[in-house]
Amino acid sequence: MIGLSSNVGVMESLKNSAEEQQPSSPLNSWSKNQDSCRNHKQKLAGGFVLVHAGAGYHSESKAKEYKHVCKRACQRAVDRLKAGALAVEAVAAALVELEDSPFTNAGMGSNLNLSGEIECDASIMDGKTLHYGAVGAISGIKNPVLVANRLLNEAQKGKLSAGRIPPCFLVGRGAHDWAVSHGIPQCPSEKMATKFSLSAYKRNKRKMELAEKMDQGHNQTKKRRQSCENENGPGCLDTVGAVVVDLEGNVAAAVSSGGLAMKHPGRVGQAAHYGCGCWAENACNMNPYSTAVSTSGCGEHLIRTMLARECSAAMQSEDAHQALLEAMQNKFISSPFLASEDRVLGGVIVLRCCRCVEAPPSQNIQGILVEFLWSHTTESMCVGYMSAQDSKAKTHISRLPPGTVPGQCLAIEGGVCRLMSVVE
Amino acid sequence: MIGLSSNVGVMESLKNSAEEQQPSSPLNSWSKNQDSCRNHKQKLAGGFVLVHAGAGYHSESKAKEYKHVCKRACQRAVDRLKAGALAVEAVAAALVELEDSPFTNAGMGSNLNLSGEIECDASIMDGKTLHYGAVGAISGIKNPVLVANRLLNEAQKGKLSAGRIPPCFLVGRGAHDWAVSHGIPQCPSEKMATKFSLSAYKRNKRKMELAEKMDQGHNQTKKRRQSCENENGPGCLDTVGAVVVDLEGNVAAAVSSGGLAMKHPGRVGQAAHYGCGCWAENACNMNPYSTAVSTSGCGEHLIRTMLARECSAAMQSEDAHQALLEAMQNKFISSPFLASEDRVLGGVIVLRCCRCVEAPPSQNIQGILVEFLWSHTTESMCVGYMSAQDSKAKTHISRLPPGTVPGQCLAIEGGVCRLMSVVE
Repeated sequence: MIGLSSNVGVMESLKNSAEEQQPSSPLNSWSKNQDSCRNHKQKLAGGFVLVHAGAGYHSESKAKEYKHVCKRACQRAVDRLKAGALAVEAVAAALVELEDSPFTNAGMGSNLNLSGEIECDASIMDGKTLHYGAVGAISGIKNPVLVANRLLNEAQKGKLSAGRIPPCFLVGRGAHDWAVSHGIPQCPSEKMATKFSLSAYKRNKRKMELAEKMDQGHNQTKKRRQSCENENGPGCLDTVGAVVVDLEGNVAAAVSSGGLAMKHPGRVGQAAHYGCGCWAENACNMNPYSTAVSTSGCGEHLIRTMLARECSAAMQSEDAHQALLEAMQNKFISSPFLASEDRVLGGVIVLRCCRCVEAPPSQNIQGILVEFLWSHTTESMCVGYMSAQDSKAKTHISRLPPGTVPGQCLAIEGGVCRLMSVVE
Repeated sequence: MIGLSSNVGVMESLKNSAEEQQPSSPLNSWSKNQDSCRNHKQKLAGGFVLVHAGAGYHSESKAKEYKHVCKRACQRAVDRLKAGALAVEAVAAALVELEDSPFTNAGMGSNLNLSGEIECDASIMDGKTLHYGAVGAISGIKNPVLVANRLLNEAQKGKLSAGRIPPCFLVGRGAHDWAVSHGIPQCPSEKMATKFSLSAYKRNKRKMELAEKMDQGHNQTKKRRQSCENENGPGCLDTVGAVVVDLEGNVAAAVSSGGLAMKHPGRVGQAAHYGCGCWAENACNMNPYSTAVSTSGCGEHLIRTMLARECSAAMQSEDAHQALLEAMQNKFISSPFLASEDRVLGGVIVLRCCRCVEAPPSQNIQGILVEFLWSHTTESMCVGYMSAQDSKAKTHISRLPPGTVPGQCLAIEGGVCRLMSVVE
């Protein structure tokens, strides 16, 4: 019924409003393609994907790896979109790629907990059906996002035998067993650990023991205050995620995380928390825009501020950039829920879209205007983005301007893309 | 510095607006005390508590037991308030009493899961500090709310050694081990099961097997639709909770649940979900009212609608009764997040308060106006309430009017209470 053509349109680089300084955005390059593409009507299923490999600290030495995994994740999502998949399937595909990378803190290569084990959190939300699936503290499963996605799919089928309501959130051993009984591939924990995650565990363990030894003789309050200096260490916060819009205008979001390094076993972070890790809501009577959000950073901060849902709600304002800036400033950095925190660490990727209001070149063309943004208070955030029309993804490591304090300042960037679909 | 006198003031019964029919409210009796108490300045620490023993179905034969446990829970909270405890301590005390009852689906006597085990969820929120603690799918701990409360307290102390952020949400085995290492009493699962919960498990197991046998030969969709008829069976939804305001005007809320009967192991319901099971927020620049909410019912419905937080936000409107009615109608029964559900099952207790605006009888009297409400779409909901000035709690089983359909209609009731404190 609908033949589709994807088209990248007007792009704009957005100022880092927190600092009035802005490293040149990689998005400008997109605008070159704009006019050449707009008037072509290619019959393609398609859409747009934005992924992140975490808000945290991305060393220059590993920048290439982070960018590369973002690129592959975008490609996976776009492959699915081109094959006619809906946004929710494409976002799951992107997450699988991000989880499979040993460089990200999700799936393979996740941070180890206090007991030296890997326990993962993941969730996914479908903006079309508003269904949601999540797993927390799950071990021995290669791709936690696939369990979350399967929970979402199963819940959509309706009730279980004897009128039982299907679960949307499973944790621990029960989540693992449910996954296995639904045919989701297992992976022994020892195979999910990498050289890097094991050496980080040993280093962290030594650091902890040293900190505790040094603190002996001090009272609890002193001990805790002194210890704060070590926070935001490299590689601690690399939760991954993605947001997608398909050419029908459906949005979806997902997130996956190995959690904080040296977390207590059983600790569940924002990646498994409804409204905190990801959010996706198609436009409806109440909301003119479809919105999708995925968050990264310190789970406890993201939970208590419910950042994914807050950003999604903010995106209904007219100016997306200003709305995200205000949400990050007022609902995160200066949130009354985090009044006692000196550094509020996190990042978001955000996508919003609506039908293009401008007159189409001809009657049988429908356009979707996609605005996409990322913002973070961590030192850096690695993102990638791609439309089905692009031959490859663009990637970028966004960094706080030099001299600014992580957890107190923010960076914000983004762009605009126009998707065109041909209605036959 | 502050000597306090508690005083019960103006009470009004509120109409069941959904049906324009209202069983006479038990709250009217409170108004008799109003004038006699208002002008006494008793030096008492104090406050007000509202508890619920679940939204679900409460048989007439067990009405006495449910009311009795609500009464005891109120008394426990009031004892703590009179001893000078803050709202958050009092609300935890009320929950311990509710959990210890073998008649409620929380702590002792919880529903058994598919494997015949008990796994509990609980959470608590302090409106003063906005801190939150939660446990999910925890076994072998007598009072899950005490683990949630301890998580909240520990998080308030600041960071752990080596700058690690303390968890606010723990699940499964890890939650159990953390509880034990923090001195919280264990209880073997077999001791937490009761004759009633064991026989319900056997009955449910038979019912499931029968349903699955009958459905063999039918396709999956048919099977699931046919099975829906058994939903909302007796005793399935009795999550318990409480909301408290102390005489300083601090609010707190808590919730605890054994979860749905025959749930999958590892399933976590709304009782452990931030924003879904309970919510408490002291008044601030943005919000004129302090609000506290605790929910009960079908966890998945309450999660996906984030009902606790929605009701809390609604309570900032001028007319509390109308605001709750609209929230239950628009954000729950008719929520776009539950569009595919034919019956939306849940209940809430809500409390909001502000400083009295009327001129006090003398300069050294400060008053707190407390409005409290309950509303449910389930067949019944058992509540109890008490101020520190009362000699005993009032209890009530609210029922949907005869002939109305659970999950599609609602009942709403409530009252008003004035607390007076003498400032020395």
